[in-house]
This record gives sequence, structure tokens and C-alpha cells, in this order.
Amino acid sequence: MKYKQRAEMCANPTAKKLLELMNEKQTNLALAADVTTKKELLEIADTLGPEICVLKTHIDIIGDFDSDLIIQLQRLSEKHNFLFFEDRKFADIGNTVMHQYQDGIYHIADWAHIVNAHTVPGPGIIDGLKEVGLPKGRGLLLLAEMSSKGALASGAYTEKTIKMAQANKDFVVGFITMRQLIDDPCFINFTPGVQLAQGADALGQQYNTPENVIAKQKSDIIIVGRGIYKAADPVAEAKKYREAGWKAYTSII
Amino acid sequence: MKYKQRAEMCANPTAKKLLELMNEKQTNLALAADVTTKKELLEIADTLGPEICVLKTHIDIIGDFDSDLIIQLQRLSEKHNFLFFEDRKFADIGNTVMHQYQDGIYHIADWAHIVNAHTVPGPGIIDGLKEVGLPKGRGLLLLAEMSSKGALASGAYTEKTIKMAQANKDFVVGFITMRQLIDDPCFINFTPGVQLAQGADALGQQYNTPENVIAKQKSDIIIVGRGIYKAADPVAEAKKYREAGWKAYTSII
Repeated sequence: MKYKQRAEMCANPTAKKLLELMNEKQTNLALAADVTTKKELLEIADTLGPEICVLKTHIDIIGDFDSDLIIQLQRLSEKHNFLFFEDRKFADIGNTVMHQYQDGIYHIADWAHIVNAHTVPGPGIIDGLKEVGLPKGRGLLLLAEMSSKGALASGAYTEKTIKMAQANKDFVVGFITMRQLIDDPCFINFTPGVQLAQGADALGQQYNTPENVIAKQKSDIIIVGRGIYKAADPVAEAKKYREAGWKAYTSII
Repeated sequence: MKYKQRAEMCANPTAKKLLELMNEKQTNLALAADVTTKKELLEIADTLGPEICVLKTHIDIIGDFDSDLIIQLQRLSEKHNFLFFEDRKFADIGNTVMHQYQDGIYHIADWAHIVNAHTVPGPGIIDGLKEVGLPKGRGLLLLAEMSSKGALASGAYTEKTIKMAQANKDFVVGFITMRQLIDDPCFINFTPGVQLAQGADALGQQYNTPENVIAKQKSDIIIVGRGIYKAADPVAEAKKYREAGWKAYTSII
């Protein structure tokens, strides 16, 4: 099913907006900006923004973070038309994640269209995040599988995660997963650990190709990090991933 | 086995220091300070510091965080002799948690004696954290079980977590768990969700008593939060928990 048709079927405003954006902009590429300075993050957002549907951030690794960074990032998101996904991997009880999502220095709920959560604490984590995020029209991804070696998110863990998503379709907009888990047009599948060549890093991260992830595993969005921003020419490299991801999508619709 | 004897057997300097401190100060009470302002956190650290072995923080929910908070907290930890446990629940791949542990605004590795991590990403998360924390003599707790309703950390998940701890005894100093998981004097068991009366909150957190946790389940440290700092007289309430926890400990050694 095309992104456009799926957008029409989804109630969550963030899911709808993302699918529309992917269709219009013709990209299913998310960039993982794992950098540690404002300057690098803003440069990535401005130069690679035109190629991507989602900018995935780790706001808590930016050493010189301040509120001006958020203002500048929001302007770039409007300029280049992409959404923010703060890869916070919430993993605590409901009462705590509510604070982590809306309070503190970062006020994540005020600017991140999408966040994600582990399901290991049980469904209370979704209840807590939803209380903050749903009134703002935000979306939540559940970590159903991970790309790292020896990950424990598999089998019954993944099955229970899918059930928690189905019980919260107003707020849960998809999964972090290696593949399409269930045939539901309103769950958007994000797959990390994507590179043009297969391989692994020294700390257990394992890589897969865009073709395999989108066309074979029926995922929706490829998340690419170091493969792009550490390349000699990041824009040219982003275009390669964008084309590979889009070609894989158009080959199966 | 007594805390003192266990301290002599442990190689990790943080595990050793904590067990010695618990023995000298006669307390196995950890306070969970889930507050959102500097003022509240410093007040808790100063007034309740004399009763506790560990102050458990969520530094990322403090709205007016600045580096002065860390300096003031460190002075209070010296004044009252307790350790910091930043309840960050790291839950990402090794490369990312390295940054989250040492970089960003918080520089957690520079002040938190203890941090914790979920094992769902696989053993690479321990490798990443260890690379930062071991040279500083820090200790890591693995989340082997959770106190929230419907938690997925059980059975094979918990067993695999224990194996990861055993493979990293230089850095892993214990578990977040509801009970003693293995009979190893160098793993210190921290149990959250403790109140003087059993019960639950509206977001799935479930409570257990100090007697049950320490004497029956053979855990080592009770983590108490709202039960103490939201009481009419927090110091008096902390003393009650401290006495209940210590009495339970002395009843079984």
C-alpha cells in the first residue's frame, strides 16, 4: 500500500503527517545525527534536511545544548520539511517517564514529533507518555526489535510489544524493528542499523542494506547514521541512501 | 553474610565503598528523589542524607539544572556520606550509551558512582558503559526485574541478564531486582517499589514492604521514593524505613 493511501487511514496526526511528507518529498530516509555539538547538529539538519523525512536526535549528547538549539532546529524542520524523532528510548515506569518527556532541561514533548520507548517496564510506560504526548498530537514508537548483537527483544517480548501497540493505536504510530511485524497500515516501521554494505561495528551494532530492509523485510523507514554523516561527501551519500530506499519502496507498491 | 565481609571480597571500588558505608552507617535505605527542582533535590539530599546509603537521582527531570547543582550535591554527599545512583536506565547500543554516559550537559560519569542499564540491547551496552566508567572506578547495575505491572523482565530475560553480569564482574556491581537472584556476595541487589504498606499507583507501579524485600527476598537495598519525601515529616518517615530495613537485615545475618 502506498504511503499516501496509508496517510488517509491513520487517525494519529503525526503518523498522517509523516506518511504524507514521505509521499510528497519522495523519501523514506531518516538520518541518525549522533553528534555532540550544536554546530554539527545544525549543519547536518541544514545540509541533509532536504533528503530526509525524519531527523533522529540524541539531544542528551549535545555538550553545548541550550534552548536556542531547539529554536534553530525547528526553523530548519520547517524550511526543509522533516519531522524530529528524539531517540530517547524511554524505559522507566509511567510516573517517571512523564517527567522525562515533558520536564527537565529538554522539554522533549514540546518539539519532538516522535519519541520511542522500550516495553520492558510494561504498559504503564505507554500510559505515562500518552498522558503528555497525546494532547500535543505526538506519536510513539515501541522498540519491538533491536539491531545490536545479542538483543533480548525477540520472540515473546516482541509479541507482547505488538499487543501493547494495538491496545494504544491512538498514540503508538509504529515500531523500531528489523521488519514489518503486522500488516497494519497505521503502524510505521523504522529500521536502524542500515548501511549500503552489510557489516558490524566494534560495540555490537550490525548493519543491513536499504533494499533488504524495505523490499524484503517490508519495513518503511531506513535509519542511517555514521554511514552518511561520516562520509567524505555526506550530501552525495545521503542521496544514494535516499534513492536506494525509494527504489526499494517503488519496487513493491 | 555481613556487608562488611562482602566489602572485603569485592574488587570493584564502588561496590566495596558502598558495602563499607552501609555497614558503618547502619543503613540499607536508598532514597529515590523524583523531584523537578534544584531546591527540592538539595533539600532532600541535606535533610535525608544522614539516613541513607544511596541517593537515587533522575537528573534529567530537574527543570533548573546547572553545573552548580552537581557541585552542591557532591558537597552534601561528602558531608553525609552517601553515594549517587543516577537512575538513567541506559537502553541503547554501546556507541550511543558511551556518549550519554560521559557527554551532554550532565556528564553523568563524572559524578554518579552508580548507574543502571537495561540489557535488552544485548551485551554491547555493558561494553560501551564500561569503557567510560571502569577507568573512573564506577559501578553498573543491570535491570534484571522491574516492579511495574506487566514488566517483561522475567524468565529467560532475567537469566540472560544474570549471565551478562557474571561476564562483567569488574564493572557490574549488582541488579535492580525484586529479590536476590544469585548467591554472589559482590552483586548488590537494589529493590524499588518499597513502601511500609503494600499497594499500587495509578500508572502500574506496585509496592512491597522492607521486611519482605530484605528478610524474605534477600535483597540488599530498599529504594523508597514518594513514601518518604511526600510524607508530612520526611525525616521521621525516612527513619522508619531505615529502621525497618536494618532490622530486616540484622534478623538474617
